[in-house]
Amino acid sequence: MKIGKQNSPFQSICTSNPDTIVVRGHDLVEDLVGSISFTEHVWLLITGQLPTVPQRRILDATLVSIAEHGMVPSVQVSRMTLAAAPEALQGAVAAGLLGCGSVILGASEDAGRLFQEILEEQKSTSAAMAAATEVVLRRYRAEKRAIPGYGHPLHKGRDPRAEKLVALGESTGTAGVYAEIARTVETVLPDVIGKALVMNVSGAIPCVLLDAGYPLLALKGVPLLARTASLVAHLLEEQQRSIGFIMSRGAAGVIEYDGPAPDGFVANEN
Amino acid sequence: MKIGKQNSPFQSICTSNPDTIVVRGHDLVEDLVGSISFTEHVWLLITGQLPTVPQRRILDATLVSIAEHGMVPSVQVSRMTLAAAPEALQGAVAAGLLGCGSVILGASEDAGRLFQEILEEQKSTSAAMAAATEVVLRRYRAEKRAIPGYGHPLHKGRDPRAEKLVALGESTGTAGVYAEIARTVETVLPDVIGKALVMNVSGAIPCVLLDAGYPLLALKGVPLLARTASLVAHLLEEQQRSIGFIMSRGAAGVIEYDGPAPDGFVANEN
Amino acid sequence: MKIGKQNSPFQSICTSNPDTIVVRGHDLVEDLVGSISFTEHVWLLITGQLPTVPQRRILDATLVSIAEHGMVPSVQVSRMTLAAAPEALQGAVAAGLLGCGSVILGASEDAGRLFQEILEEQKSTSAAMAAATEVVLRRYRAEKRAIPGYGHPLHKGRDPRAEKLVALGESTGTAGVYAEIARTVETVLPDVIGKALVMNVSGAIPCVLLDAGYPLLALKGVPLLARTASLVAHLLEEQQRSIGFIMSRGAAGVIEYDGPAPDGFVANEN
Amino acid sequence: MKIGKQNSPFQSICTSNPDTIVVRGHDLVEDLVGSISFTEHVWLLITGQLPTVPQRRILDATLVSIAEHGMVPSVQVSRMTLAAAPEALQGAVAAGLLGCGSVILGASEDAGRLFQEILEEQKSTSAAMAAATEVVLRRYRAEKRAIPGYGHPLHKGRDPRAEKLVALGESTGTAGVYAEIARTVETVLPDVIGKALVMNVSGAIPCVLLDAGYPLLALKGVPLLARTASLVAHLLEEQQRSIGFIMSRGAAGVIEYDGPAPDGFVANEN
Repeated sequence: MKIGKQNSPFQSICTSNPDTIVVRGHDLVEDLVGSISFTEHVWLLITGQLPTVPQRRILDATLVSIAEHGMVPSVQVSRMTLAAAPEALQGAVAAGLLGCGSVILGASEDAGRLFQEILEEQKSTSAAMAAATEVVLRRYRAEKRAIPGYGHPLHKGRDPRAEKLVALGESTGTAGVYAEIARTVETVLPDVIGKALVMNVSGAIPCVLLDAGYPLLALKGVPLLARTASLVAHLLEEQQRSIGFIMSRGAAGVIEYDGPAPDGFVANEN
Repeated sequence: MKIGKQNSPFQSICTSNPDTIVVRGHDLVEDLVGSISFTEHVWLLITGQLPTVPQRRILDATLVSIAEHGMVPSVQVSRMTLAAAPEALQGAVAAGLLGCGSVILGASEDAGRLFQEILEEQKSTSAAMAAATEVVLRRYRAEKRAIPGYGHPLHKGRDPRAEKLVALGESTGTAGVYAEIARTVETVLPDVIGKALVMNVSGAIPCVLLDAGYPLLALKGVPLLARTASLVAHLLEEQQRSIGFIMSRGAAGVIEYDGPAPDGFVANEN
Repeated sequence: MKIGKQNSPFQSICTSNPDTIVVRGHDLVEDLVGSISFTEHVWLLITGQLPTVPQRRILDATLVSIAEHGMVPSVQVSRMTLAAAPEALQGAVAAGLLGCGSVILGASEDAGRLFQEILEEQKSTSAAMAAATEVVLRRYRAEKRAIPGYGHPLHKGRDPRAEKLVALGESTGTAGVYAEIARTVETVLPDVIGKALVMNVSGAIPCVLLDAGYPLLALKGVPLLARTASLVAHLLEEQQRSIGFIMSRGAAGVIEYDGPAPDGFVANEN
Repeated sequence: MKIGKQNSPFQSICTSNPDTIVVRGHDLVEDLVGSISFTEHVWLLITGQLPTVPQRRILDATLVSIAEHGMVPSVQVSRMTLAAAPEALQGAVAAGLLGCGSVILGASEDAGRLFQEILEEQKSTSAAMAAATEVVLRRYRAEKRAIPGYGHPLHKGRDPRAEKLVALGESTGTAGVYAEIARTVETVLPDVIGKALVMNVSGAIPCVLLDAGYPLLALKGVPLLARTASLVAHLLEEQQRSIGFIMSRGAAGVIEYDGPAPDGFVANEN
C-alpha cells in the first residue's frame, strides 16, 4: 500500500539505549523525574522546550479549568462503558475521550483556529485588528459557521472561568496579540451577528495558551489530557459505587419508541 | 433492562449552579484555577483531598517517569490511526490508550495488587513480612502467574527509573509499608522463582504511590494520564511530519503470508 | 522493546499482487464478490473454509438474534458520542463496541468457555456428562463465579431467542455435543445452585455455534459484528433525529451529588 | 447542560416487552431469527424495510469486496492492541475501527457525497448530466479537494473490484442514475484534472448502494461492518499466532530519531 506522501522517516521526541532514556534531549531519569512537574513535562513533550514559569502556570490553569464539569456526556459514556466492561479501564477512558469531539470540547481548538485566521488576515492586509476581525467573522457567517469560543448555554451573563484565565494571562505577562484578538472579537460580534456574546472558557483557553507559545495544532490535547484526569476520578468512583446502569435506565426512560409494531403488541419493557 | 445491583444514585465529584462550579467541595474558579497545579488537581479529583507537597511530588515523578518511552506500540497505533483518520484527534488518542492493557502499562496496577495481597496476608496472619511475601509469591507461581513489577526486557541489571522513584519516596518521607513489601519481594524472589529480578518502574510506581496514599483502584489512571500527554506530543509531530504509513509499511514488511493461494498466483504487493 | 515471545512472523488470511486479491486462498473478485453472502464471507475469514448451508444458517441466526435490543448502554454510548463528535462516525461505533465487555455481551464467550471446560472434564475423566457438568459447575460456585448463559433479568420463564436457536441447531442437523452439554447444565443447575435457571440467548449462541464448528476464540466476534450493524442503524437515526443529548440529560437527571460544597452553595444546574 | 436543539425524544428501531422483541416492526424471534440472513437484517435495521433480492445481493457484494485487504493499518493497529491488551477483544476491534477515517475507508462515503452533489446540481439546473458533473468537479478542484472514488495507488489500469460491483449493479437491474453519474465522472475527469482516472472500489460501492436504495448517511457503515469481520478473523489468528509485537518492532525499525541528545549518548535500543 502507498497512501499519502511520507518520506521523512524520523521522530524527535524520545530515544534510548539500555542505560539512558532521552526525552526531548534530556536524560529522563537524571534530569526530569523528581525534578519537574507533570505540567512541565507535558509542555516539554509537546513543544520540545521546558516552559518558563508563566508558561507553566498558564498550562496548569487551563488544564484545571476544564478537567471536570459534572455528569457531562463523556463522563456518562465512560462510566456506562466501565459498568459493562469492567475488565478494561482503558476502554472506558477511551470511550469517554471519543466524545471530546467538535461539538463538545472541540470548541477550544476551533476558537484557536478562528484567532489564527484573524491574525493572518490582519498580517496579510495590514488592516486594523477590528477590520480584520470583522472580515473573518463575516466570512464565518456567510459560511453559516458558528463563532466558536463565545456564548454559553449556562453562564449567560459572563463566564467566570474565561475571566479568570484572561486575568491570569495578564498577571503572568503572557497576554499578547491573541488576547487582543479575543477582546476584539467580543467587541465586533454584536455588529456581525446582531447580539452580544461574551467569551467563554473555550475561547479563553486558546487565547491564553497561544499567547504563551503553546502550539495551535496541539490545542485539543489540553481538553483531552484534562478530561482523562476527570475520567480516571469518575471511574474510581464507578468501581466503588456504580451508577453506570442507573444512568442507562435514566437515559432510556426519556426516549419513546415511535416505530411500527405487530398487531396487539404492548410495549412495557421494564 | 436490569443489569447488576446499583441502588446508590449518587456522585460526589462535581456539582454546579449557573454561578459556581464546585469540584470536590472547592469553588473551581475562585479556589483552584490559577492557584493549584494540574497534578494537584488530579490528586484532588481522584482522592477528594488536595495533596501534601510530598504527595504531589510523588505523583509528579511517577507521571513524568512513564509518560514517554519512544516508538512503543501505543504510540505507533495512535500515529497510524491519525494518518488514516486525521479528522478525529480524539480517536487517535483513544486508539493509543486502548493498548494500555494488561501486557503493557498494566503491570503497575498488577504490581499494586500484588503488594496489597501481601499486605493483607501479613495482616491476617500476623506473620513476618518475608513469610507473608513468600506465601503470596508461591501462590502466584502455583497459579502460573507472572510476578508483576520485577524484571525488565531491556534494563537487565537495574532499572534507573525504579531506583529514582524509590529514592524519592524515601527523601520525601512518604516511604512506608509498601516500600518494605517491594524490597521484600525482591529479596524473596530468588528463592521462589530461582533467579534474581530487580524491581522495575512498574513495581516502583505502585510502591511509591500507595505509600503516598494514592488509591489502588486508580493506579491504572497514572499510566493512562501520562501516556495521553505522550500521545498528544506524538500526534502534534504526526500532523507536521507524518510517519504513520511509513511505520505501517515497515510493519507489513516483516510479516509473510503463509496461507493458500490459487495456482499460478505470485505475491508481490508493494 | 522485546515483549512476549513472538517468533512466527506469518499471517494466513490475505495476500495480493497488483492484479489479484487472495482471501483465504480464493480470488476475491473472481470467486467471492457477487457469489457469496457476507455471512459466508465472515465464516470464510474466521475459519479459513467456506461454510456448509447449515453452518451459514446457524451463523446468520445467531447474528440476527443479538444485533438489536433497543436502547441498551452500548447504543446510548454510541449515540451520545456521535452527538458530541459528529465528525467521526467510526468513533461513535468504537465507543459503542467498547461496552461489549464481560458484563454485557461477553456472556456468550463465557458460556462457550464453560461448555468447553465441561467437555474437557468429561473427556479427561471419561465420566458421564452429568457428572462432569456437576464437577465444573461446583468449581464455578467454589470460585464464586456466575454461571454464564443461564437466567435472564427480563424473560423469567423462558428465553424465546434461546429456544429458537436451539431448535435451529436441531433442524439443521448441526446439534451435537455442545447441545447435550447445554441441556445438561440446565438439568444439573438446580442441584448446584438451589434454583432452576433456563438457558438464555448468551448460552444458546455458543451452544449452536460450537456445534456448527465455529471457533471458541472468535465467539465474541459474533456479538461485536452483530452490534456493529445495530450501531450503524442507530447512528443513521441519530444523524436525522438526534437524541444523544436528550439521553444525557435523562441520565444526569437520575443522579444526585452527595459530596461537599462551599457554605451557601445551592445546586440547580439546568 | 443544554447542547444543540433536540426536541424529538423518539427512536424507531426496536421495542420490546417481556415476551416479544420488535425490530423495525417485526417480531424478532418469530419472523426474523432463522428466517433471514444477517445481510437482510442489516438492511432492515438500517432502512426499516426488508431488502429485495437485488438489494440484498448488492449489499452482500459490497461488504464482501472491502472486508479484507491484508496487513493494512487498521489490521496492524488492532493486532498490536490485542497483543498489548489481550483482556479486551472489543478494545482491539475498536482501535482498528478508529482508523477507518477520512483517508482510509472514508472514500466510499466521500464518493457518495460527490455523486449526490452532482445529482442535486443536475436536478436544480436541469442541465445535462455531463455539464452538471463538470460544474461539481471544477468546484472540487477550486477548493483543492481530491476527487474521491477514482484512481488507486495499486491497481493503476483498472480496479477489478469496482468493475465487478458495477457489473453486478447492471445484472441485478439496480443500476440507475448513480451508475450514470459515476460513469460520467470518469468521462469528464480528464478534461477537469488533466489525466484519466478509473473508478475504484470506493467509487463503485456508493454507486451501486445508492442505486439500490441504501441511504447516503449510512454509507460509512458498510466499510465499518465489513472491516469488523476482518478484524475478528485477524484477532482470532493473533490469539493463536501473535505478530503484534513483531509488527511493532518492524515499524520502529524504519523510523530514526533526529532530535537532540545529551553529549556522549549513543542510541542503540534493541
